[in-house]
Amino acid sequence: MSSSDIFIGETIGTAILILLGGGVCAAVTLKASKARGAGWLAITFGWGFAVLTAVYTSAPLSGAHLNPAVTLAIAIKDDAWNNVLTYWSGQLLGAMIGAALVWVAYYGQFRAHLTDDEIVGDVKSVEAREAKAGPVLGVFSTGPEVRVVWQNLATEIIGTVVLVLAVLTQGLNDSGKGLGTLGALITALVVVSIGLSLGGPTGYAINPARDLGPRIVHALLPLPNKGGSDWTYAWIPVAGPLIGGALAAGLYNVAFA
Amino acid sequence: MSSSDIFIGETIGTAILILLGGGVCAAVTLKASKARGAGWLAITFGWGFAVLTAVYTSAPLSGAHLNPAVTLAIAIKDDAWNNVLTYWSGQLLGAMIGAALVWVAYYGQFRAHLTDDEIVGDVKSVEAREAKAGPVLGVFSTGPEVRVVWQNLATEIIGTVVLVLAVLTQGLNDSGKGLGTLGALITALVVVSIGLSLGGPTGYAINPARDLGPRIVHALLPLPNKGGSDWTYAWIPVAGPLIGGALAAGLYNVAFA
Amino acid sequence: MSSSDIFIGETIGTAILILLGGGVCAAVTLKASKARGAGWLAITFGWGFAVLTAVYTSAPLSGAHLNPAVTLAIAIKDDAWNNVLTYWSGQLLGAMIGAALVWVAYYGQFRAHLTDDEIVGDVKSVEAREAKAGPVLGVFSTGPEVRVVWQNLATEIIGTVVLVLAVLTQGLNDSGKGLGTLGALITALVVVSIGLSLGGPTGYAINPARDLGPRIVHALLPLPNKGGSDWTYAWIPVAGPLIGGALAAGLYNVAFA
Amino acid sequence: MSSSDIFIGETIGTAILILLGGGVCAAVTLKASKARGAGWLAITFGWGFAVLTAVYTSAPLSGAHLNPAVTLAIAIKDDAWNNVLTYWSGQLLGAMIGAALVWVAYYGQFRAHLTDDEIVGDVKSVEAREAKAGPVLGVFSTGPEVRVVWQNLATEIIGTVVLVLAVLTQGLNDSGKGLGTLGALITALVVVSIGLSLGGPTGYAINPARDLGPRIVHALLPLPNKGGSDWTYAWIPVAGPLIGGALAAGLYNVAFA
Repeated sequence: MSSSDIFIGETIGTAILILLGGGVCAAVTLKASKARGAGWLAITFGWGFAVLTAVYTSAPLSGAHLNPAVTLAIAIKDDAWNNVLTYWSGQLLGAMIGAALVWVAYYGQFRAHLTDDEIVGDVKSVEAREAKAGPVLGVFSTGPEVRVVWQNLATEIIGTVVLVLAVLTQGLNDSGKGLGTLGALITALVVVSIGLSLGGPTGYAINPARDLGPRIVHALLPLPNKGGSDWTYAWIPVAGPLIGGALAAGLYNVAFA
Repeated sequence: MSSSDIFIGETIGTAILILLGGGVCAAVTLKASKARGAGWLAITFGWGFAVLTAVYTSAPLSGAHLNPAVTLAIAIKDDAWNNVLTYWSGQLLGAMIGAALVWVAYYGQFRAHLTDDEIVGDVKSVEAREAKAGPVLGVFSTGPEVRVVWQNLATEIIGTVVLVLAVLTQGLNDSGKGLGTLGALITALVVVSIGLSLGGPTGYAINPARDLGPRIVHALLPLPNKGGSDWTYAWIPVAGPLIGGALAAGLYNVAFA
Repeated sequence: MSSSDIFIGETIGTAILILLGGGVCAAVTLKASKARGAGWLAITFGWGFAVLTAVYTSAPLSGAHLNPAVTLAIAIKDDAWNNVLTYWSGQLLGAMIGAALVWVAYYGQFRAHLTDDEIVGDVKSVEAREAKAGPVLGVFSTGPEVRVVWQNLATEIIGTVVLVLAVLTQGLNDSGKGLGTLGALITALVVVSIGLSLGGPTGYAINPARDLGPRIVHALLPLPNKGGSDWTYAWIPVAGPLIGGALAAGLYNVAFA
Repeated sequence: MSSSDIFIGETIGTAILILLGGGVCAAVTLKASKARGAGWLAITFGWGFAVLTAVYTSAPLSGAHLNPAVTLAIAIKDDAWNNVLTYWSGQLLGAMIGAALVWVAYYGQFRAHLTDDEIVGDVKSVEAREAKAGPVLGVFSTGPEVRVVWQNLATEIIGTVVLVLAVLTQGLNDSGKGLGTLGALITALVVVSIGLSLGGPTGYAINPARDLGPRIVHALLPLPNKGGSDWTYAWIPVAGPLIGGALAAGLYNVAFA
């Protein structure tokens, strides 16, 4: 794979991932959406099938990492570091494009959610602002239900170890053929699994680009009443997945290689 | 494939698609249905598995486009235009047959929904008529939650780009074998994904035949209190998917070919 | 395949089908079940994965028809009638065994549902008896939400045509290899699709053995307050699927063969 | 496969299984989880995809039994008993590690659930203690809705027979290739099926290690107000699955071999 194929593939793939992943959060939580209130199952299947669509579409170009933690783990496993920055930059750019596309696709829903007084009462009050701002930030980035730094970090690490182990063992299950069609489906369902089982405490970033790219877009977009971008928490969904990816690669090299 | 196989395959396939797709909307929204209130997950999985069943059944005859935007994109990609009108006419005819079959299968439910006064109160009032008419039109065609023409069009374009990119890259993932069994499954789950993630604003037509054919049937069927067929909106779910299909084919030819 | 393999395979497979299919109805509707109220999605996925498990397990022995309408359609398609009665008798016996196993697995739930006064009030009243009896019959057999004979029959015919067409075209999609692992998965998801999209009016028997066998068991089991077995309706989920199977076989021979 | 590969594979695989399976129970039932109230569908799909992830990851090392009842059945089928204790000890150790990881990942949620007075009122009362303790034990181990010993045992036996039959017939469906990628998916969906259809009465342990390992961890963990570990019931989810596995192996040897 050429560097330009990698960069274009990761950009397109991560853009689709975040468009569909952020999209399902917008669909389920914003006002004036047909999917409003569809619940946690919709969000977890929505993110999982976002992975399916994104991996399936971008795999022929770049192998579909779409996640800096996956790129790091594969680099550690193979001790091959040449393309890491190409992958990472495509992933971050793609995540920002995807987040911007969510804003386009849900323009009227963001407007209805953020500006309609009828729903949240007196917008001057702190509670009302937060009731508006919370779901909107949630379309872009993750956040913890209970703020316990070591637990939040541990949950992201554990979730990413599971994801990356499943990705790395794929080559063993499919005779080293790499990420075929069935592999994309399995990866997608593993992501549904992590969402259902480990998403409760922090919203399962398990991917630094998935969280950081859209958070930057949230900070830049001119949305009224959008509230802060919670930069205090932002390092956890970046550091946790990177640590998790490195741990999984180490475990793979010890137990499976 | 012969012209008659294409026409028959697309007619049967699109009829099954709309029978099952319109069927799940009827099942979830009409009175006196066991599935009433099953929610957005039921609708999105219902449409996705409708695609699976329809593609799987018609693929041996016509290759299972079942969507004028897919036919357009494949024609642009291959610069081959011979069978486009055969595909399109089979798709539109099939969509109308499918919509009529939904009416047959849910005859008693339509009757209960549209004529029972107990549910909607005084049927002379505008609100009561709309409470009856809205879900019934929704069985046949899509409509926006917030009417913003540019956004509604953009949402349909974006959704169709994702769908068509996934269809076009299928050949790259499966060694050019075309749309096999696993391809039908992936396409179905991509449609579930688009429904969950991008369906909130407009109900995701992403297929001109899926929207126009049933809307014509809605206008023709002798249903009491059925309300208007919303022809003002009807051009968006036709134009949006066609534009999206063309854009995806162009992106494919630039980035993947 | 020998006659005894066919008979044993169909008996085991249909027993698993009805155990799991009737089981999900018991799980969702009876008192004192952890799944109570899990809704229509649970029922449709439950029946679909029941088909998956049953087909997957019995396919090596008998080819996994598990449905007299499928057996009839294959006999018409191939004009081969030798084993039809062997298939049918195994299917009916298996369905009865499966229904009896549901009663064993949910013994305490049936008892809690049928005998606890607290839930249904004065059990002498007609309404209270029906509130108990309805869900219990629903564990065994299907019934219509609106009794319109021609529509109920038409809905069962339409659903079965979709099912049987998908089964018959399987050979075309998979190079005539018959019902492999992936075929079992597709058939299962087609059944989920029919449930979600066409199950609203009659509960989608689409299989004479699935409805008749458990209805006989319901009539025989010594359950207190169980109510009648609704024999007036019983011919429709037998005749409808058989007509649908024959129609699908005819359509297949005209359009696909 | 070497003994150490078997032990390591079963330990890793069962740890992932219980981490994700216990995780979804914590996610859906504990306070301060984003998934709270997601319902029975979330739990059954969560356990099923836990099986997928665990089987997929550990299959290259140990063949992914992950269940003493599966190990017993395969030993009976092949009359090969050499590695049984290696499998069993890895499974039990893995289950305990997985349960401990659930506690780490949901630390803040356990604390919020068990110590917040606001939710359960006067914690001195028996009812309030039970309202806290019930879901917490449910994260670790299964329990019956209605205590009828013979039924509880029968339900676990029946569920395990279905699971093990599907696992054993896998070799017949896939030309003896063993547990490939598609086999992991089918097994996962069979587990979803058993959960949806047979999980209502006892919570479907269908695996002695899945129940016993986490119950031991529950007894050891220093959780305030955690309540008892229900050791009276603990033999049923051990004995039932072992009996079911043996019965399924016998049925397989009679009917399929």
